[in-house]
Amino acid sequence: MELEQLNRYLEEHDNYLILTHKSPDGDTLGAGFGLCGFLRSMGKNANVLNSDNFPVRYNFLYDGYYVQEFEPECIVAVDIADTQLLGCHLAKYAADGCIDLCIDHHISNTGYAKHNCVDADASAACLVLYKLFKLSGREISDQVAKCLYTGIATDTGCFKYENTTPDAHIAAAGLMKYNISYAAINRRMFDVKSKGRTAAEIMVIQQMEYFFDDKCAVITLTTETINSCGVEPAEFEGLASIPLMTEGVQIGITIKQRHENVYKLSVRTTEELDASHFCQRFGGGGHIRAAGCEITGTLEEVKAQVLQAVKEQLGY
Amino acid sequence: MELEQLNRYLEEHDNYLILTHKSPDGDTLGAGFGLCGFLRSMGKNANVLNSDNFPVRYNFLYDGYYVQEFEPECIVAVDIADTQLLGCHLAKYAADGCIDLCIDHHISNTGYAKHNCVDADASAACLVLYKLFKLSGREISDQVAKCLYTGIATDTGCFKYENTTPDAHIAAAGLMKYNISYAAINRRMFDVKSKGRTAAEIMVIQQMEYFFDDKCAVITLTTETINSCGVEPAEFEGLASIPLMTEGVQIGITIKQRHENVYKLSVRTTEELDASHFCQRFGGGGHIRAAGCEITGTLEEVKAQVLQAVKEQLGY
Repeated sequence: MELEQLNRYLEEHDNYLILTHKSPDGDTLGAGFGLCGFLRSMGKNANVLNSDNFPVRYNFLYDGYYVQEFEPECIVAVDIADTQLLGCHLAKYAADGCIDLCIDHHISNTGYAKHNCVDADASAACLVLYKLFKLSGREISDQVAKCLYTGIATDTGCFKYENTTPDAHIAAAGLMKYNISYAAINRRMFDVKSKGRTAAEIMVIQQMEYFFDDKCAVITLTTETINSCGVEPAEFEGLASIPLMTEGVQIGITIKQRHENVYKLSVRTTEELDASHFCQRFGGGGHIRAAGCEITGTLEEVKAQVLQAVKEQLGY
Repeated sequence: MELEQLNRYLEEHDNYLILTHKSPDGDTLGAGFGLCGFLRSMGKNANVLNSDNFPVRYNFLYDGYYVQEFEPECIVAVDIADTQLLGCHLAKYAADGCIDLCIDHHISNTGYAKHNCVDADASAACLVLYKLFKLSGREISDQVAKCLYTGIATDTGCFKYENTTPDAHIAAAGLMKYNISYAAINRRMFDVKSKGRTAAEIMVIQQMEYFFDDKCAVITLTTETINSCGVEPAEFEGLASIPLMTEGVQIGITIKQRHENVYKLSVRTTEELDASHFCQRFGGGGHIRAAGCEITGTLEEVKAQVLQAVKEQLGY
């Protein structure tokens, strides 16, 4: 579905229920509350439903939000590539034909909705919405601008990553004309950490192991380590980018225990290597610089397999 | 001097010597080598002179650069607010009337050159150059684009800080159309750290002290601590932003020993407080969010004075 059709669709329908993905991030929440605010300003009914609670640092995204009473007529998924990402609390919407509309930017989108508006070139779902709102000719509120800016900034690592497009910068320039306190948003999104998070980061940095002339760095997190260190387990989420921060590292691997003898790998690579290709060896996949997979075995077995694969990939 | 005049000036003159500021950063180096590359592509002679050696991570900014033989006719200072910033190696250019041209973006620029092109609204000196090159109608090389992008990205903290303007984003969008590997540049500028730097950061985080319900965080670095910890002293430069990264901290203070009983303070604040005002109490100054001063006394005396001042500032 093209943006023009999507625009017409939104005009013609009403009573929207917007779903965000599990383990919500700035883009799915920004897109959810941003679309909701936009629809309400059109005089439509709209609510947002989140599968999981989300970190307090995102609270400003729903400033002024309240739940409306209505019977949903159109179910919209934002930034959700696959119905599996609805998570357990929204699993009932995963049924075939249940979701009317999907607005997304993942190339891996499975096309599960009745109408799919997927722009795989967009840096963020919020960038798709920015273009849509522009096209509509309608003015947006400061609050909606804040949501869209947050989604674009967070999905691009504050315009740092490869997926940042010229369009993402141009959208940021457009959104900065609203009263959005972008520096405060960025500080909150990228700089500020809880003491627990800092403790978790220091812990993984100090126990990180280096291999193959420091070209490979590995973090290993067992359930026991996490539960016995006195830091909230939630603080150990999303640490996968840390190994790549050491000078010279080309492949960073975070091995995290899921269950007994089941480990989840998060792999990050620099330009020299293909993370997705690496993870495919273990039945996983993802993007060229960030991918993942699951491996069964004891920790020693898993590490041996992984290091053997790294060795081959690096040509050692 | 307006950009139009500057453009005409560059066309009409030749044999340029470009000076960058001491303790060089991405903006002064990007502006220096970017302007040099642009002038050479116009068929002019141009060289860059750096006061200090600069960190190896900036080496890519002078890919393809070589020293030309010519007698300088026009001395240009880039990103230099004050002749004092020329540093000791370029001090001879500080003499009155020595510098012909200054291209800068600091509101504090003292207007020391014969012709000053200062745009205090620009996020970076490289943004002034971007606009100049656009206006000239001349094509720029990938290498020049790389230099300008680096200057804009580094001076805005990768588009994160308050000083990021819509124009900075629009320039980034324009520069990304060249072959500049912006993600690799950003990784090198913002993410990658030496093991020594990481060790220094962990050390200061672990010994950071909190006061007044965690609204104030203090790092103390004595010469003895630095010299006895096994990490290169250079890795302890520029750590002043760390205290502000902890949730809830409004004023972050780094106290670093200069000599016996002489301590340098680097103060960083969030929106709630004025760092410059704080440092003025001790005869220092700076910007509203980042300032500094020097205090004499024993470490205990210095800390007591500082905490008393923080107490008053926070209204405790």
